[in-house]
Amino acid sequence: MNGTMKCVVKTKPEPGALELQEKPIPQPAANEILVKVRAAAICGTDVHIRHWNDWTQKRMKPPVTIGHEFCGEVVELGADVKGVKVGDMISAESHLPCNVCSDCRRGNRHVCQHTGLLGVTRDGCFAEYVAIPADIAYVAPAGISYKTLAILEPFGQAVHAVMDYPVCGKNIAIVGCGPIGIMCVMVAKRMGAAKIIAVEPNAARGQLALENGADVLVDPMAVDPVDTIMGLTGGVGVDIAIEMSGSVIAEEQATRYIRPEGKFVVAGLPSEPFSFNLSEFAYKGITLHGAAARLLYETWEQTDSLLKQGLRLDHIVTHELPLERFSEGLDLMEQGRCGKCLLIP
Amino acid sequence: MNGTMKCVVKTKPEPGALELQEKPIPQPAANEILVKVRAAAICGTDVHIRHWNDWTQKRMKPPVTIGHEFCGEVVELGADVKGVKVGDMISAESHLPCNVCSDCRRGNRHVCQHTGLLGVTRDGCFAEYVAIPADIAYVAPAGISYKTLAILEPFGQAVHAVMDYPVCGKNIAIVGCGPIGIMCVMVAKRMGAAKIIAVEPNAARGQLALENGADVLVDPMAVDPVDTIMGLTGGVGVDIAIEMSGSVIAEEQATRYIRPEGKFVVAGLPSEPFSFNLSEFAYKGITLHGAAARLLYETWEQTDSLLKQGLRLDHIVTHELPLERFSEGLDLMEQGRCGKCLLIP
Amino acid sequence: MNGTMKCVVKTKPEPGALELQEKPIPQPAANEILVKVRAAAICGTDVHIRHWNDWTQKRMKPPVTIGHEFCGEVVELGADVKGVKVGDMISAESHLPCNVCSDCRRGNRHVCQHTGLLGVTRDGCFAEYVAIPADIAYVAPAGISYKTLAILEPFGQAVHAVMDYPVCGKNIAIVGCGPIGIMCVMVAKRMGAAKIIAVEPNAARGQLALENGADVLVDPMAVDPVDTIMGLTGGVGVDIAIEMSGSVIAEEQATRYIRPEGKFVVAGLPSEPFSFNLSEFAYKGITLHGAAARLLYETWEQTDSLLKQGLRLDHIVTHELPLERFSEGLDLMEQGRCGKCLLIP
Amino acid sequence: MNGTMKCVVKTKPEPGALELQEKPIPQPAANEILVKVRAAAICGTDVHIRHWNDWTQKRMKPPVTIGHEFCGEVVELGADVKGVKVGDMISAESHLPCNVCSDCRRGNRHVCQHTGLLGVTRDGCFAEYVAIPADIAYVAPAGISYKTLAILEPFGQAVHAVMDYPVCGKNIAIVGCGPIGIMCVMVAKRMGAAKIIAVEPNAARGQLALENGADVLVDPMAVDPVDTIMGLTGGVGVDIAIEMSGSVIAEEQATRYIRPEGKFVVAGLPSEPFSFNLSEFAYKGITLHGAAARLLYETWEQTDSLLKQGLRLDHIVTHELPLERFSEGLDLMEQGRCGKCLLIP
Repeated sequence: MNGTMKCVVKTKPEPGALELQEKPIPQPAANEILVKVRAAAICGTDVHIRHWNDWTQKRMKPPVTIGHEFCGEVVELGADVKGVKVGDMISAESHLPCNVCSDCRRGNRHVCQHTGLLGVTRDGCFAEYVAIPADIAYVAPAGISYKTLAILEPFGQAVHAVMDYPVCGKNIAIVGCGPIGIMCVMVAKRMGAAKIIAVEPNAARGQLALENGADVLVDPMAVDPVDTIMGLTGGVGVDIAIEMSGSVIAEEQATRYIRPEGKFVVAGLPSEPFSFNLSEFAYKGITLHGAAARLLYETWEQTDSLLKQGLRLDHIVTHELPLERFSEGLDLMEQGRCGKCLLIP
Repeated sequence: MNGTMKCVVKTKPEPGALELQEKPIPQPAANEILVKVRAAAICGTDVHIRHWNDWTQKRMKPPVTIGHEFCGEVVELGADVKGVKVGDMISAESHLPCNVCSDCRRGNRHVCQHTGLLGVTRDGCFAEYVAIPADIAYVAPAGISYKTLAILEPFGQAVHAVMDYPVCGKNIAIVGCGPIGIMCVMVAKRMGAAKIIAVEPNAARGQLALENGADVLVDPMAVDPVDTIMGLTGGVGVDIAIEMSGSVIAEEQATRYIRPEGKFVVAGLPSEPFSFNLSEFAYKGITLHGAAARLLYETWEQTDSLLKQGLRLDHIVTHELPLERFSEGLDLMEQGRCGKCLLIP
Repeated sequence: MNGTMKCVVKTKPEPGALELQEKPIPQPAANEILVKVRAAAICGTDVHIRHWNDWTQKRMKPPVTIGHEFCGEVVELGADVKGVKVGDMISAESHLPCNVCSDCRRGNRHVCQHTGLLGVTRDGCFAEYVAIPADIAYVAPAGISYKTLAILEPFGQAVHAVMDYPVCGKNIAIVGCGPIGIMCVMVAKRMGAAKIIAVEPNAARGQLALENGADVLVDPMAVDPVDTIMGLTGGVGVDIAIEMSGSVIAEEQATRYIRPEGKFVVAGLPSEPFSFNLSEFAYKGITLHGAAARLLYETWEQTDSLLKQGLRLDHIVTHELPLERFSEGLDLMEQGRCGKCLLIP
Repeated sequence: MNGTMKCVVKTKPEPGALELQEKPIPQPAANEILVKVRAAAICGTDVHIRHWNDWTQKRMKPPVTIGHEFCGEVVELGADVKGVKVGDMISAESHLPCNVCSDCRRGNRHVCQHTGLLGVTRDGCFAEYVAIPADIAYVAPAGISYKTLAILEPFGQAVHAVMDYPVCGKNIAIVGCGPIGIMCVMVAKRMGAAKIIAVEPNAARGQLALENGADVLVDPMAVDPVDTIMGLTGGVGVDIAIEMSGSVIAEEQATRYIRPEGKFVVAGLPSEPFSFNLSEFAYKGITLHGAAARLLYETWEQTDSLLKQGLRLDHIVTHELPLERFSEGLDLMEQGRCGKCLLIP
């Protein structure tokens, strides 16, 4: 497709340096598809890119069009593409594993050390059009709104974290009830968790957790979360804690209210060092597992099932802005004043 | 059996307060056996009891005869005892799970929160005789020396840690090569680990690791252990790190040289807070699991197999002292100047 | 409690020999509770007891009051009972594991080789009152109908079978859609299975499967089930087949439409020898696992969660008869002309 | 490399039709290596190819050079080959997975439904030279004899079967002690099995099993193997049975001496239908798993470890013949009158 398009570009390797630009519409390579973006969602990573933090500095070489959560319509196919057709409404995985390293060969594509990342190592979706490899596209079933489809990538993070250990019949703490935490509550409820304890100091988010399936809300500013949760679980602690807050204080507390041989699933990534009593933790035989990103492609198969059975995410989207106002969206995200915020090209 | 015996008693709830005393020989209850102690071994926990640390304060109510690693001959049986007979040479588990709590009912007796502990919550084996429940006794095959039998309990900790994840064909780091670390090296070698990297600053212990099966020794005071181990593993890191040092510095380093979706098995219990970069750890999908003590009784079945196939531990014992000189033994242990030290009643 | 009660007794070790009798109300032992039966359900095993088949002959010593699926109200407590109180509405596990054999010690109580069985090795629930050990009682949440509560034991079999391997995102065949097969459909749907294929020749049962969550119905008398299911799964086969038919023909077919490294969960127990092509099965790396009965007590914890989240089984009950008409109920069951049939004392 | 070479060719799609021919030395493609064959080993599959059985008919399109177990020296590299160099002594995997199907993407390359097979779907190693893709080559450590290296592929089948479930501390039956059964005995011993029970009617093979690590030999023609093995295991049965006999009688017996929740690992592929009492099997919660071939490439990593730690297979080779006498070798194999038989080009 010829012509130009609007896009949000990280122009230089320094804080700030995000600009709305006009660039040529990308040409899909043989294994790629061109997608007309219907809506893109802002992620915490986009805020990190704005601030040019360590993680970003190691991976990004500006100029790069940012954005990696989106949905849109397929408008053009590369020569070798199969399984996707023009007109399909798609969402997409944001990781592009190398498929040849020892991690990929072991079936651990989600932790490929050479992975590409949409909107970080290659041009992303804060744009009118984006070209992506066909094999990361998820072709959506009919009848799903653009709001839900635009945020399937972060939803997959929730699905991965909750599915990490079997939850049916188990007591679960969800620590941190931002958008992904709320999604965890929804999935844990859907999968038959016994008692879902939401741990969240922000009253509005806590309320949202209760409305989406949490059985109890614990405000860690109002009560001692360790004592409270031990009390709620007959003195033994939760079977599984799922950490989405990124707060090292909340994480340290979680280490103390997990039961013997219980599980601590961590997807919230703190920016400070995490410090805790390893002896007590190990003495109880607890397992800590990092469940970042999505299993490729098992998590997408699970997401597909949940969508087909009626799970929807529209209510997680609280704001929509035209692409031009991306900077306001990043502010909202940074200040935690929103659920998910969409940009509409 | 009538009469009195010598024993080492923690007399008061304060530092020190260990005395050699003369007490009546215990009478075995209906489900118990009376054992004439052949040799007892000193554990780091005995040093903690001497210093009356936090862990001990929560669990112990003096006066209590200490000691929980030993072997000896069965000399008397309680009325209900089956499966053990007078004359049997035995070693024993030191944990006495309650068998009724929810942890025990789930098959997790090793993390029973109401567990009794020999030499902590009830009279132990630094004595001429000890009475124990028959179901924690391990009846040894013929032909095993008292040296090996006296230290099967700590050996079980090594077996549990190494068996936590399959090691055959995997690259393994053993962090900390005190007596239990050396036992880990032996078991990992026995189970077919690909490359065993011993991490140990003490030259004598490092040498012992090499003699017992380690393929490479890394001295973390002489080289950067993270760079070195990444180099030794083709830049990806070890599949499994087994932590026996209890050093928070060594543990932090280990978090950085484990490969994506690798395993960090922790049995060394630090006394300080453990601090590390959880984000990088979780981002790689690594699992941390506490493998303290022994699985009851799967670990003992594995130990039994390894003994029957010829594995011996005599060379791990470096000192033997008469029971009266227990205080010297505790000094040796505290200063790390020994392998295992036995007390002979 | 004094007095007598009506009960259905297997009077002699021979076919038939089932009589309505008047017997003393049982006295609960110290660890037992006395339950006034609200409703009891007829199981296939009760039909086997009528016919005095091999399985029964090995286990039962008449006279024994039969029946093992039920719910009722607690009316009396033994001296040592905790956690259950008079007035509680309960359902119950039917297996009474010994808790001391090596299977129980490994946490495999559900396959205890010395297990007692309600209504087989001790007096059961086809009676006005039944005494059971308190630790097999399941205290129901408020607001659940007696219909649902009376059939939790067979429901647990469905829960166990479906939970045997993670089903979310997976294609599942449920083979045989009698009452437990329908329950499997319900649970698999609840747990997020991708595509649920019901395999059932009886049109009424097939229709029920579709109404309860199956996505496709395959009638093995009308089409070739292997070809059809391979077609429905893109030529690879289902991820998991759950067998509830007890038909060796259906089971043999299932071995051929399971995908490589797929799972075959068997709970339907055929009375004839099962014959299949082991080479093709093994060549594909398929796993067959027997999932009879319920995991003790993990399955009950899962059942409890599902009930609390709204799952109900009332529609599975199609018939209710007074206890006196037990013989009609056994006829209905034997002829497959019912869902679950309750007896009301 | 120019010139011609001797090779054994299946010339036509019919029984027999195996000829020694002179053909051009193959040219390696860009991703391939050319190997001068040092020794090739005869497999049961080669006998099936001779007889043109069902399995073969579905997969093979003559003319094809047969043979898939071998070792040799790398003499030429394709343009893109990395990680292998001229002069390397190699053995090789025989399966060539497609790497793109859903089985391969799930990490199950060993059951890829589109897999190529050396000596079946493409020219094999009963020849002076063979060209293979570099990524199926296993570069051997120095100092391993050609005898051991030539039979690493079947050894991998034993490694896969034994490693399927953890064996340390477990009672194991190895059913069928032909060459791969003996290898299973060796690996199970190496991995710390508690008691290894060899089940084998052929006295010479039984003797070999005892010499290679079996603790007990059961001759199923002389005693009832079910009663005997139940007796040897305290009445509960073995934890794991590993089936290498391909005899449906032996397999049926095995179903009866496996303990509750035990494992039945099947790699011996019978040519007749397998018939057993599924009800008793399922009632005990037993698992049957097919462990054909090798996990790619985890099994090779395990094999590599075991070789480096000193495990050798030379004594499994009982015959060596020049390539020209391939027909005698096939006779020996068919009649079970050998361990492994090598062909030397």
